[in-house]
Amino acid sequence: MTMTKARVLIVGTGGVGTMAAYALETGGQAEVTAVLRSNFTAVQRSGFEIDSLDHGTGIKGWKPSSVRNTIPNVAEEGLSPFDYVVVTTKNIPDIRPTVVEIIAPAVTAGKTTICMVQNGINIEKPIIERFPRNVVLSGISLIGATETAHGKIRHDDNDTLKIGPYPSLQVFPEAAEAAARNFVQIYGACGKVDCMYDENVPFSRWRKVTYNASFNSVATVLRMDTSRMRLSEHIIDDLILPAMREIVMTAKACGVELPDSVMDALVKADPIDIFFRPSMCQDIEKGNYIEFENIVGEPVREAEKHGLSTPVLKTIYGLLKGLQLKTKEAKGLWTPSVGQCGKYI
Amino acid sequence: MTMTKARVLIVGTGGVGTMAAYALETGGQAEVTAVLRSNFTAVQRSGFEIDSLDHGTGIKGWKPSSVRNTIPNVAEEGLSPFDYVVVTTKNIPDIRPTVVEIIAPAVTAGKTTICMVQNGINIEKPIIERFPRNVVLSGISLIGATETAHGKIRHDDNDTLKIGPYPSLQVFPEAAEAAARNFVQIYGACGKVDCMYDENVPFSRWRKVTYNASFNSVATVLRMDTSRMRLSEHIIDDLILPAMREIVMTAKACGVELPDSVMDALVKADPIDIFFRPSMCQDIEKGNYIEFENIVGEPVREAEKHGLSTPVLKTIYGLLKGLQLKTKEAKGLWTPSVGQCGKYI
Repeated sequence: MTMTKARVLIVGTGGVGTMAAYALETGGQAEVTAVLRSNFTAVQRSGFEIDSLDHGTGIKGWKPSSVRNTIPNVAEEGLSPFDYVVVTTKNIPDIRPTVVEIIAPAVTAGKTTICMVQNGINIEKPIIERFPRNVVLSGISLIGATETAHGKIRHDDNDTLKIGPYPSLQVFPEAAEAAARNFVQIYGACGKVDCMYDENVPFSRWRKVTYNASFNSVATVLRMDTSRMRLSEHIIDDLILPAMREIVMTAKACGVELPDSVMDALVKADPIDIFFRPSMCQDIEKGNYIEFENIVGEPVREAEKHGLSTPVLKTIYGLLKGLQLKTKEAKGLWTPSVGQCGKYI
Repeated sequence: MTMTKARVLIVGTGGVGTMAAYALETGGQAEVTAVLRSNFTAVQRSGFEIDSLDHGTGIKGWKPSSVRNTIPNVAEEGLSPFDYVVVTTKNIPDIRPTVVEIIAPAVTAGKTTICMVQNGINIEKPIIERFPRNVVLSGISLIGATETAHGKIRHDDNDTLKIGPYPSLQVFPEAAEAAARNFVQIYGACGKVDCMYDENVPFSRWRKVTYNASFNSVATVLRMDTSRMRLSEHIIDDLILPAMREIVMTAKACGVELPDSVMDALVKADPIDIFFRPSMCQDIEKGNYIEFENIVGEPVREAEKHGLSTPVLKTIYGLLKGLQLKTKEAKGLWTPSVGQCGKYI
């Protein structure tokens, strides 16, 4: 008896996406198509080069079943529908095209399960708005994996992935749960990774954003690793913990009770001796856009909806938005023109 | 009849200090000794080179009456007491030596008037604590003057200086006012500058710190000029105005009523077309320490004393303190050691 492999499209092949492709393919239950951008030429020519904590070091010349540099247009290309579209790009809703615009041609309405493995809060909302009858899964990845050069991946912290259904009015909860459990099964089939069904995705997301809205944001503004922040002590007391407290308060208003112990645990989460620079800090140092809107902006907006005051997060949000503006200017998307009409000119 | 010239020591000869020395000497009523540090050799050899909006361009080879590279020790060197010690250095109380430690050997107790021409709030307090019987003047300079190379000064915004007595329990108010009015007279004697007696120094200081705690601080964190901030609009709405409101509230608790119109005026104070980078932003870009303690730290501490909440300023303060820590590390004053015992390790 032959088992039909699941057709999986992975959009975004940095560290997280490539290791997802590797886990899925080596498990034998999925046939992966990967959409590559900056690393397409390098991978097309010589495959990925991977040093992985979970899968072994010295992996060379590996490619998923199919590699391409455009989003498949399922209808126009006459392709079979994808069972899963896994989104592992950065989420930058303030820059076009947005995630939903990017993936739309690859999604078969009412059929493809969309699996959002990205940072932040409310990343699922624009997807459900556009594809109300598709199952949307929410994935929280705790992997440590970086693309150090085109097609070269250093995977140095275990691939732990929590996946669960994100509620949608026009989708049967049973169907969503089944799709999630199936994905967990095919992702974990390689036996090397820790992929688990998460029945409380909002809790996991808010827990992770407690770290990201504080450490990741402050690291980005200061361009500083989390070890130096902890050694300074004042940065934890004056910035990290106040930001975390505002997140915990906002999560509670959104129905997610994070115990205070979460904050203590997250303060010490990174090994002290690795001087880790969180993702947005790495992005800004590379001149890339930062995904601050879903990491800080959405929590701030959720707080406002609930009538809560989050001045620390709002200040950090304003600063990150200012830094993003500088990147927009550097990339030609913004020109400071004094001739324009503005309220402060 | 010969008039005895006032003996004036100027500590700190960047843009502000050099132009003060020039105004005082050319007015003919003061004999200036200037203490130079980084620019001593250049000025000793060939004098200052000055292009000044008030005094004319192309001034070359000028020196004050006396130039030295150490603080005079009046007692040990057997010098006549100074009538005035004018302090125009940056004020960095978190780095030793502090201002009071620097100037102490040049001050004759009960005799020398100490004139503090620096940014921020409460800069006078450690001086009065150390020299309780000396007159302390507080000066708010609105000059635009920069040292572009050693000994080379570009003075491009008018020298406007407000001077008034800072209250001290052991000094007669009449004596303090007389010393201030005398200094205004000598400083303005050149006829080219706008030096005025200020009977409400706290008002002028809080007004200026309203600009500095907001624009100067945010410029430093973002490394951005004030024109771009205004063109962005969100930086004014989300950061500058909220910070200004907290300053105005704190000033009020300290007895200084700044009208709301001050905020509107300060938002548009810098010419929009010059893309001005405030002083701390320039300092951090040069790798220098920033004087954030008196610009943001003291307002935050005053607010706390009065039971007020200033979360925006506290967040900005924490970030600036983090940036200062990076400078301390770069200059060898801090080493992040993971072996140390700390509450977050």
